Amino acid sequence: MLEIIAFDADDTLWHSETYYAEAQARFVEILSPYGETSEQALAVLHRVEIENLPYFGYGFKGFTLSMVQAALSITAGAVRGEHIQELIDLGKTMSGHAVLLLDGVHETVAQLARHHPLMLITKGDLLDQERKISDSGLGDYFQYIEIVSDKTPASYQRLFQRHDINPARFLMIGNSLRSDIAPVLSLGGYAVHVPYHLTWAHEALTDLPAADGRFFQLESITDLPRLIGKIEKEGASGNEERK
Amino acid sequence: MLEIIAFDADDTLWHSETYYAEAQARFVEILSPYGETSEQALAVLHRVEIENLPYFGYGFKGFTLSMVQAALSITAGAVRGEHIQELIDLGKTMSGHAVLLLDGVHETVAQLARHHPLMLITKGDLLDQERKISDSGLGDYFQYIEIVSDKTPASYQRLFQRHDINPARFLMIGNSLRSDIAPVLSLGGYAVHVPYHLTWAHEALTDLPAADGRFFQLESITDLPRLIGKIEKEGASGNEERK
Repeated sequence: MLEIIAFDADDTLWHSETYYAEAQARFVEILSPYGETSEQALAVLHRVEIENLPYFGYGFKGFTLSMVQAALSITAGAVRGEHIQELIDLGKTMSGHAVLLLDGVHETVAQLARHHPLMLITKGDLLDQERKISDSGLGDYFQYIEIVSDKTPASYQRLFQRHDINPARFLMIGNSLRSDIAPVLSLGGYAVHVPYHLTWAHEALTDLPAADGRFFQLESITDLPRLIGKIEKEGASGNEERK
Repeated sequence: MLEIIAFDADDTLWHSETYYAEAQARFVEILSPYGETSEQALAVLHRVEIENLPYFGYGFKGFTLSMVQAALSITAGAVRGEHIQELIDLGKTMSGHAVLLLDGVHETVAQLARHHPLMLITKGDLLDQERKISDSGLGDYFQYIEIVSDKTPASYQRLFQRHDINPARFLMIGNSLRSDIAPVLSLGGYAVHVPYHLTWAHEALTDLPAADGRFFQLESITDLPRLIGKIEKEGASGNEERK
């Protein structure tokens, strides 16, 4: 009954936000001698990140540029050169961070791939995402890999058209209500939210579109095969009017 | 006879390197009060760019980060905050630059699209390339649009596999010998070099693989339909042993 099962990558299959959190913690340390509180420094960084999204998009390169800009802003331009270099070096470290799969991901993906075509839909920097997919060892389980610049209803719509997907037979798993869940529900697909222990404020969301039983939340990705079995059984029995 | 005609984008369909050259000229101006010559400043920038490719890949975001790092390096960390902010702002300006088609591009692409499936193969930042494709007004002429992180033989090979392309019936047009021409020739495809008036040193190349009559150079993209007609005619008469 489900034609495609699609996965977000960062913070759904492997750890990502932890590396941003580590970089932010170091950012705060670097800026602390200049007199702002941690909260003030992080607030400026977050504001600059959001302001820069239209220019730099998602991913660690835009984040690194935003750290530099925020450091200049917080210190009124007085941040020392060595500290700016350290921010750039933090970005380089992020580009090579270890790809650590979340618990149970490998087994779950391998199990689902036996019966369903899987798709990976991830946003961010192209080279960085390719590197992580390769390092994850999961690439071969996915029939389709889509790296997109943003995850809006329009970008999912384009994927549906390109791959001739019926949204009513499409299921997306991800940690971001804004990027993985809301757009898919609004197009009539199934969406499974598996929260990560950290969420970038930008990815939080208060209102979800009407879901009509197509929205689920799981504590762990390992519960996914059972949920999918249930959805497909009920879909089938629903079609057959529960004989 | 040709199944796919593929185009590079930056400096093949529209101006791009001019914007990098403008940013570099401003970079040199900004750094000039610090005592290095233009040549020295540009040499450092170029070295930093190449060193940073494994971390940041191609595109204006990595270029912007490299400008900041080069400025720190040239001034031993003493570059003023306002100047670093100006380098970041240069990057933002690049993200929104006008997409100016090269002479004759629109007519040539429109003409070729009537008889051949066209593919766009471009490398760089994802969001930036999508924006330029959209602003160019050329998107609808291309049956396939591929944004890749690098253009190596392996990346072309992946495209050939994904789209089931026979390289012997594939023709690529581009301005970069390193990225558009050499890898395609090495895989047995046709390649047409249309030089742009500026070439990033990294894209230059001294040795081309053996081409066996599959390599062409044109002064203008407008000569392409005639060349393709000739290739297809000779290919056809070759197959029919010139009856």
